Amino acid sequence: MTEPLPTGAVIGILGGGQLGRMLSVAAARLGFKTAIFEPGGDCPASHVANFHLQAEYSDTEALKRFAESVDVITYEFENIPTEALDVLEALRPVRPGRKALKVSQDRLAEKSFIEGLGLSVAPFAAVDDAEDLAEAIEEIGCPAILKTRRFGYDGKGQARLKTSTDATAALSDMAGAPAILEGFVDFDYEVSVIGARGLDGAFAAFTPGENVHSDGILDTTTVPSRMSDATTAEAMEIAQKIMDRLDYVGVMGVELFVHSEGLIVNEIAPRVHNSGHWTQNGCAIDQFEQHIRAVAGWPIGDGRRHLNVTMINLIGDDMDRVPLLATDPNNALHLYGKAEVKPGRKMGHVNRITGSA
Amino acid sequence: MTEPLPTGAVIGILGGGQLGRMLSVAAARLGFKTAIFEPGGDCPASHVANFHLQAEYSDTEALKRFAESVDVITYEFENIPTEALDVLEALRPVRPGRKALKVSQDRLAEKSFIEGLGLSVAPFAAVDDAEDLAEAIEEIGCPAILKTRRFGYDGKGQARLKTSTDATAALSDMAGAPAILEGFVDFDYEVSVIGARGLDGAFAAFTPGENVHSDGILDTTTVPSRMSDATTAEAMEIAQKIMDRLDYVGVMGVELFVHSEGLIVNEIAPRVHNSGHWTQNGCAIDQFEQHIRAVAGWPIGDGRRHLNVTMINLIGDDMDRVPLLATDPNNALHLYGKAEVKPGRKMGHVNRITGSA
Repeated sequence: MTEPLPTGAVIGILGGGQLGRMLSVAAARLGFKTAIFEPGGDCPASHVANFHLQAEYSDTEALKRFAESVDVITYEFENIPTEALDVLEALRPVRPGRKALKVSQDRLAEKSFIEGLGLSVAPFAAVDDAEDLAEAIEEIGCPAILKTRRFGYDGKGQARLKTSTDATAALSDMAGAPAILEGFVDFDYEVSVIGARGLDGAFAAFTPGENVHSDGILDTTTVPSRMSDATTAEAMEIAQKIMDRLDYVGVMGVELFVHSEGLIVNEIAPRVHNSGHWTQNGCAIDQFEQHIRAVAGWPIGDGRRHLNVTMINLIGDDMDRVPLLATDPNNALHLYGKAEVKPGRKMGHVNRITGSA
Repeated sequence: MTEPLPTGAVIGILGGGQLGRMLSVAAARLGFKTAIFEPGGDCPASHVANFHLQAEYSDTEALKRFAESVDVITYEFENIPTEALDVLEALRPVRPGRKALKVSQDRLAEKSFIEGLGLSVAPFAAVDDAEDLAEAIEEIGCPAILKTRRFGYDGKGQARLKTSTDATAALSDMAGAPAILEGFVDFDYEVSVIGARGLDGAFAAFTPGENVHSDGILDTTTVPSRMSDATTAEAMEIAQKIMDRLDYVGVMGVELFVHSEGLIVNEIAPRVHNSGHWTQNGCAIDQFEQHIRAVAGWPIGDGRRHLNVTMINLIGDDMDRVPLLATDPNNALHLYGKAEVKPGRKMGHVNRITGSA
């Protein structure tokens, strides 16, 4: 397919969480219908989608039925089992494509790929056992972070090593999974570039946002960031370089450490990203619509920003703050409709408008 | 119910068109679930709602089931049959309430009500037969417009009288329905006030927009309008006066003619209004969320506007312009997912951002 998808076409979304939910609303705004593939019931995306197929990723028949009911497939998370992708790809285009998933599903592959583009990453080494870890600590030093190569997110699957004496405990946290030791980068602050690349290869990036984390989970993103114009341009070029090399189609989140000696790529996510939620209230075309446009072969927006925004995540019992937050007319609330509040669970976010761009 | 509805509660919406669709998305943003009551299948609102009950308004059992499955009921159109309201109101709060529906379902009742508040309306007279019409023309003069008292919208159920010789033809257009003759007002331009009133009686209005119609259907709304600050304040006060008197809860559209001798109330709509669609891209809290907040007993926003916007309706084969409109990054597209393009059918709209407020 190279023709843009017509309105009325069906976009299939793998994953029914808040990202799938906001993708679904954006798709509807462009006149598309949406189908959600998600093992869980009553999922956030299903509340605003045409159709929810509740099945496991191991259910080949369900995957086939899903693919046959849609025109194109995208996803809200990168850890899609390879076997499921094989089934889906045989029937419909999956965007972003396999290359992006392959590098982003494995921290070691990701770091190697980025380093291979001539970009800076934190020092890293593969760790499969105690011997590897001892060598890695020797090479990289401490403090450092041991992370599982696959399936980590929001600080999960990570162990910090203050000194080499933490090695045994950290390795046992990995529960035998292949891991990677990353050196600690003494950065000034972190930013995200939310880049987009169309089916035609066009590239655009939103204004990079400055991120603050708390307990390994994103807390706030503020646009604009403190970066100079030159560093901002450089950050966007890094995202473009990564996305071009992956023949990428869709929106990607690229987290960068801002360091006195330059920008260091922390990690990439082949999907819409929490640090891009501010675009819902700062831009005419937000990250979710930008992603749907790319996936549907439509022209992408240019990323222009009309307002300054601080995005504040509502995590766990931050939900108790909603009644108060609702009284401030500069706050745009975005709640995810999750039935149960759990510690560390992302329940919603607020985009606080702080001025004109 | 005087407590605000908690997130997770279900908002019932009567009517599954584009207004129901955009109300449903706004409700989801606040963490509510939505249920749509609509006789038609594959309706725009059903694409983004939790649940669509497809049944007729004469189906008492279906109405009861619907009411029992939701926490509060609102609507996207004012012509809800009285018998259906009786069934629904007995089970759940219906907001806005009966008073507003009663006056807005009947042009004669509406004009009389507004005149009774000491506000200006176009000269009018009830017309049930040829004799009434002759008297009305005598009193009001021509040009004038004959309109059915009930069930008219988007220029339907209307006949223009250039001179009294058009009387017979105009009356036959009414097909025996009770009508009202309205004198022609030589106004400078038309504006809309989109007002909101909370369950607590709080009032807020968005910046009045300036409307341009074509063939009796809204074509564009531009904010801000040409009105002076003093006239703008007066327009908002008119809306507040109307809504206070109706003990109104929710968003109301109030169309006003701007005339050298003052503001004249054209008509009111007890619901979100096409001329308020610009708020989706001009405000942190748009008219749809404002309505849901009021109906759910939440604090309403203050109507503040961050951007200047021109809303352009996409009617019938205006849909052919979508590919071109999608290339302008200042255009925010809002398509309604209607399967079939028909002449005069509202298919979507564009909010074009024209600058900072």
